[in-house]
Amino acid sequence: MTEIEIIQVCLELANCTEEPGRITRTFLSPPMHDVHRILGDRMRALGMQVSVDAAGNLRGLHGNPDSPRLLIGSHLDTVPDAGAFDGILGVIMGIALVATKPAVAIEVIGFSDEEGVRFGVPFIGSRALAGTLDDDTLTLCDQAIRDYGLDPADLPNARLAPNAIGYLEFHIEQGPILDKAAMPLGVVDTIVGQSRLSLTFEGQANHAGTTPMNLRRDALVAAAEWIVAAETIAASNDGLVATTGKLSVSPNVANVIAGTVRASLDVRHASDSVRHDAVRTLLEAAAAAADRRGIGLKRETLLDQPAVPLDTALIESLERAVKEAGCPVNRMSSGAGHDAMILARHLPSAMLFLRSPGGISHHPAESISPADLAAAMDAGRRFIAEMESAHA
Amino acid sequence: MTEIEIIQVCLELANCTEEPGRITRTFLSPPMHDVHRILGDRMRALGMQVSVDAAGNLRGLHGNPDSPRLLIGSHLDTVPDAGAFDGILGVIMGIALVATKPAVAIEVIGFSDEEGVRFGVPFIGSRALAGTLDDDTLTLCDQAIRDYGLDPADLPNARLAPNAIGYLEFHIEQGPILDKAAMPLGVVDTIVGQSRLSLTFEGQANHAGTTPMNLRRDALVAAAEWIVAAETIAASNDGLVATTGKLSVSPNVANVIAGTVRASLDVRHASDSVRHDAVRTLLEAAAAAADRRGIGLKRETLLDQPAVPLDTALIESLERAVKEAGCPVNRMSSGAGHDAMILARHLPSAMLFLRSPGGISHHPAESISPADLAAAMDAGRRFIAEMESAHA
Repeated sequence: MTEIEIIQVCLELANCTEEPGRITRTFLSPPMHDVHRILGDRMRALGMQVSVDAAGNLRGLHGNPDSPRLLIGSHLDTVPDAGAFDGILGVIMGIALVATKPAVAIEVIGFSDEEGVRFGVPFIGSRALAGTLDDDTLTLCDQAIRDYGLDPADLPNARLAPNAIGYLEFHIEQGPILDKAAMPLGVVDTIVGQSRLSLTFEGQANHAGTTPMNLRRDALVAAAEWIVAAETIAASNDGLVATTGKLSVSPNVANVIAGTVRASLDVRHASDSVRHDAVRTLLEAAAAAADRRGIGLKRETLLDQPAVPLDTALIESLERAVKEAGCPVNRMSSGAGHDAMILARHLPSAMLFLRSPGGISHHPAESISPADLAAAMDAGRRFIAEMESAHA
Repeated sequence: MTEIEIIQVCLELANCTEEPGRITRTFLSPPMHDVHRILGDRMRALGMQVSVDAAGNLRGLHGNPDSPRLLIGSHLDTVPDAGAFDGILGVIMGIALVATKPAVAIEVIGFSDEEGVRFGVPFIGSRALAGTLDDDTLTLCDQAIRDYGLDPADLPNARLAPNAIGYLEFHIEQGPILDKAAMPLGVVDTIVGQSRLSLTFEGQANHAGTTPMNLRRDALVAAAEWIVAAETIAASNDGLVATTGKLSVSPNVANVIAGTVRASLDVRHASDSVRHDAVRTLLEAAAAAADRRGIGLKRETLLDQPAVPLDTALIESLERAVKEAGCPVNRMSSGAGHDAMILARHLPSAMLFLRSPGGISHHPAESISPADLAAAMDAGRRFIAEMESAHA
């Protein structure tokens, strides 16, 4: 498959959607049947053994089932009103690499759920391979699995093959770093850790006309001071991001001083200790902004997810491959979660980012450059060749 | 009537409500009939001539219809879930002052609408006296007036009597200034002017994990910087208040950088030039916070209402009356609009604030102190006596 053919298949599969005119394809939704059929046919045409496991992952095996196998995959589901490349590109690239007839066994996996849109729970597909699906998630998914024609009792058979020797994921960057740096590819060394908190500033709602400035307890001004401080703190720490994306103001009326403000906080960094230090500093800044105005502060930690380092040997192999493909080598962390984050805890994993033009993703305008894709395919072939030598 | 009786009448009339268990009485709502009947009976018992004009204002005349008359009034409508004193106290105090049998003619007016809850248009009652009701408002109110049993064709007869010589309004402060200063009464010299604007910060929604701090165009951080600057600017200008009470964040999702933020701005000051200068400075601060982050800024002026000075001679007379009543004299501006703001453009007007314990109003916990009320009544009698001498 040429890079143009790979892009064409991505665009063809964009028609498999729950919403006509928009790309929306959630966990085991009806259009996923078409995706499984179209990609399954392509796999079979290459002589691969094809199945859909009980978690709805499409799995195609090239080569001897008993030989050490390299896993190549990404996810087939999308966010609502998505682009045509996020996830599915990595699966089609896996099939295109099998088409080059590598000597090593390769299992291509199209994960059923990474975005977590249907049930609010992400990584259902890769967690089934890892064996880390919890009972609550299983209960949530049970009927959807049956409705799709699968049997939850078969889930143990979805587990990782014991002879899997590594996992490789190609994915669009979904961010602006490569684009701004004019770099086609990025070798991921870490999936960043993430803290998610909710902060509530509790002041006093009051009349905007009759309450002098010095007698106010304005929850919104306190929250605002903290949001600005968070920008400063994050900007002064290399690689740290801190975001307040959601803010609820009460009573949220133009002529009433805000009594209560609830703010989200999302903090990410490749180093867990840097992230934890940052959260501590951010909470101190919030307390200072609140105290100064006689305002109460409540905080709740919703998520504290450690960073996941990828495999050093595979990272180095991928860097050599990228270099031999004629591209500058750019090691970077991933600010978003990916299936590789789940699998890396169970087998050596590597991830190659393709530049996202304009940094755009989760949007119909998402795109990739054919030249970047050609370079990524070239690097992929070289990576596989090195693995073949190692396991010859 | 003793001060205790006045408070009892306020509490009795709090039962005239559209919502059982809460005080809610909007423009010409059914319970207003009961208010008109109860207060009308009290006026008639004092020998007053009583009518309800075509705008629904209760009007009671004491004395000779052809003599120069002092108007004493406030409003009978409430916000939803109101307290028992906001507005109606000033009407009952007017009746209680007539009960002291003053020699000067007095028209007590209970305005039908000051809060503007029913039609989103405030001051319908006092604007009918001033003759400044616009056609849109008349169209809005037409059916409600007819449903109440009144005839819009009679509205010209609601106009101010030509022999009106002044307007006096008693009202709770609805703010914390007198309470904090431990002062029972405040003589209002100005109703502050008000600017109301809407500012829209237009940045770029983006992934909170994959977008580095230096490549963000975060609309919420820009708005936050401006909200903090507004607090500083207002606090450094005596008597100035600036409030952002309403904020809409889009898409308002915890892991997405805010693309668009719409913020309200409410600015008030007794001096129009101070207020206009402040608005200019606040807009410059918003532009600076936006520019620094490559963010667009749109602004819309929704209201630019000039300050209304009250009558110097009446203010001085009221100050003498307050002093003779044994209270400290405290001249202050009103941060909220009142019926006096409408009438002051047409006849000499004065306004006396009674301390709001805890600064609380527009809330069931609204209260007044009997001692403050006794002082206000004493000052009212002295003010009327001085007017009698002037017009003897």
